[in-house]
Amino acid sequence: MRSLLITNIGELTTHSDSVLTDAAMIVTDRVEWVGSASSPHAADEVFDAQGAAVLPGFVDSHAHLVFAGDRAAEFAARMAGEPYTGGGIRTTMAATRAASDAVLRSNVERLVDEMRRQGTTTVEIKSGYGLSVLDESRSLRVASEFTTETTFLGAHVVPPDVPRDSYVELVAGEMLRACAPHAKWVDVFCERGAFDVDEARTVLAAGMAEGLLPRIHANQLTEGGGVRLAVELDAASADHCTHLSDSDVDALASSQTVATLLPGAEFSTRSPYPDARRLLDAGATVSLATDCNPGSSYTSSMPFCIALAVRDMRMTPAEAIWAATAGGARALRRSDVGHLGIGAYADLMVLDAPSSVHLAYRPGVPLVRKVLHKGVWVR
Amino acid sequence: MRSLLITNIGELTTHSDSVLTDAAMIVTDRVEWVGSASSPHAADEVFDAQGAAVLPGFVDSHAHLVFAGDRAAEFAARMAGEPYTGGGIRTTMAATRAASDAVLRSNVERLVDEMRRQGTTTVEIKSGYGLSVLDESRSLRVASEFTTETTFLGAHVVPPDVPRDSYVELVAGEMLRACAPHAKWVDVFCERGAFDVDEARTVLAAGMAEGLLPRIHANQLTEGGGVRLAVELDAASADHCTHLSDSDVDALASSQTVATLLPGAEFSTRSPYPDARRLLDAGATVSLATDCNPGSSYTSSMPFCIALAVRDMRMTPAEAIWAATAGGARALRRSDVGHLGIGAYADLMVLDAPSSVHLAYRPGVPLVRKVLHKGVWVR
Repeated sequence: MRSLLITNIGELTTHSDSVLTDAAMIVTDRVEWVGSASSPHAADEVFDAQGAAVLPGFVDSHAHLVFAGDRAAEFAARMAGEPYTGGGIRTTMAATRAASDAVLRSNVERLVDEMRRQGTTTVEIKSGYGLSVLDESRSLRVASEFTTETTFLGAHVVPPDVPRDSYVELVAGEMLRACAPHAKWVDVFCERGAFDVDEARTVLAAGMAEGLLPRIHANQLTEGGGVRLAVELDAASADHCTHLSDSDVDALASSQTVATLLPGAEFSTRSPYPDARRLLDAGATVSLATDCNPGSSYTSSMPFCIALAVRDMRMTPAEAIWAATAGGARALRRSDVGHLGIGAYADLMVLDAPSSVHLAYRPGVPLVRKVLHKGVWVR
Repeated sequence: MRSLLITNIGELTTHSDSVLTDAAMIVTDRVEWVGSASSPHAADEVFDAQGAAVLPGFVDSHAHLVFAGDRAAEFAARMAGEPYTGGGIRTTMAATRAASDAVLRSNVERLVDEMRRQGTTTVEIKSGYGLSVLDESRSLRVASEFTTETTFLGAHVVPPDVPRDSYVELVAGEMLRACAPHAKWVDVFCERGAFDVDEARTVLAAGMAEGLLPRIHANQLTEGGGVRLAVELDAASADHCTHLSDSDVDALASSQTVATLLPGAEFSTRSPYPDARRLLDAGATVSLATDCNPGSSYTSSMPFCIALAVRDMRMTPAEAIWAATAGGARALRRSDVGHLGIGAYADLMVLDAPSSVHLAYRPGVPLVRKVLHKGVWVR
């Protein structure tokens, strides 16, 4: 593979070294060398960053991209005062079941492209709007065309056409067997109105027995037992973490389970934000992700999540950027993305800004100028 | 001028009619015709909107674009807990005075381009970081290369090198005379720490005597007399309106003075948002603008301001979009922009979305696909 020299980098964030100024790097599909712009170096091609900031591509570890239809009307009603209960998931289920594979594929492609233009180079994609053996497995087949980080979320809600008890049995049995070949992860929405802790444990244990790795939607709307279950099962991530007890925080801090915060969901449901400072100060590992979905968080923008994390969750810009890159990689148990150390994938972005602080300082502004994915410019 | 047919518009917001679906329009530099996509029509060129939403270009009626340097470090310190006092304006003053005309021009060009890519087709540009006769007048000369909506804001803060009393005299005298040929508007930051009501009245009255039209930074940090002064002088706009008494709200509601809300400033200073509902329910006219500046609101994104207005100021999506287009035009006393009625300038955007509600429903996502300015595609 041809080598690319990126030089005149005003600020280089690798997460392997301290932040470098006036830096350069050589990449193939992986990072080969990092150093000073004034060192002698040669490569097949050269990109002059003209003083801009360079940082690792975002790792968005929580996204629901396989669906059809939108819920703009539900959004407008919620903004006019109706509460968010998660009930609208069934609206999207109906539209998703009615859609062809081609429509689902084109929707995922549109969102993945949109994410890429905003600097995301690794994305996890969940099923969860099919809620039948056929529709969950085709959702995952479509997802696997776009990422290796595919997540079986048959246990998103109970669909209206199946009794509750037999649905859990279906998810942990026939549906799981149909989906496991296309999935890396198994996830459950562990929440009042969705699945309780025992049901979640049943589904996750069954998934793990099929070779899938667990992650959990935990403690989004209420202080339930999802986080403790995640730690018990050594899940890679407990996602949302909006309502935590002290023992939840302690459990996360003393585990390998990442607390994945999804401020787009709190923004779009007008809910209180999770307490990132409490988690960070306790020593928990925090990641940020979009939760991109048509109901509760239809943003695909990691920069927007960073701006919210700094403004409303009191993370420093550096903490938020780490959480959106290296933190996301931890939440996917990946060591080859989310940083720019030697040997990592050459997944990075060049900003229209001299510092990555601008991602929070300039909220809403599309600042991602160029994006490199495995050594190839994709924007 | 050649005519352009824009057809297959999924949702057309003109503000002259109710929202149209399956619509079309013919434009030259102005809007010539609006109707159904199925009507027979012909034009020199055709653009197929493929079901996307079309709306008027944003009118950003409050922006401080003539400056040099940035204040990312001050931003990070503020996010770590330091309060916003407006004192950093002097930091930007020093950088602005030290910059060449070419640097100032290139900074304005960069921000105007950035705004345009996000759908803004009319922008007001203030001086206010020169704070000397020479630097204010050259700031306005640079601004006038980019917009007709230029605003003399010599009374931004008192610079450190001039005694307070003589500075007001300077602004209302020699500085005004040097600046008036390049400005349409005169503005004052009427606030504790900046200029009091009497000083503001002196400056605005002097500007009006030179043919400039008044607008005021009012009631941003405290419940001062700025709003009442704006109404007294029939100012086009009272900007910020974060701290209002009942009599301020009544005064705005019974006047032609627009309440211009700048939620980017509250976002970036972590302050409480203005109460848009109280203003709207009282019958005041509300506009939205970015307040783009390197200190308190370094966003250039009107879509971001719309998302905040809906989420945090309880405006409906339709109210927020009106405020960001027609409301901005009212705040600049313009009837030729901010709407797409027959005869208005052909300033519009085509979204990557079927409805303008998506501007709030999909926060942070760059949804502006195409932008037409006076009949010419500029994105």
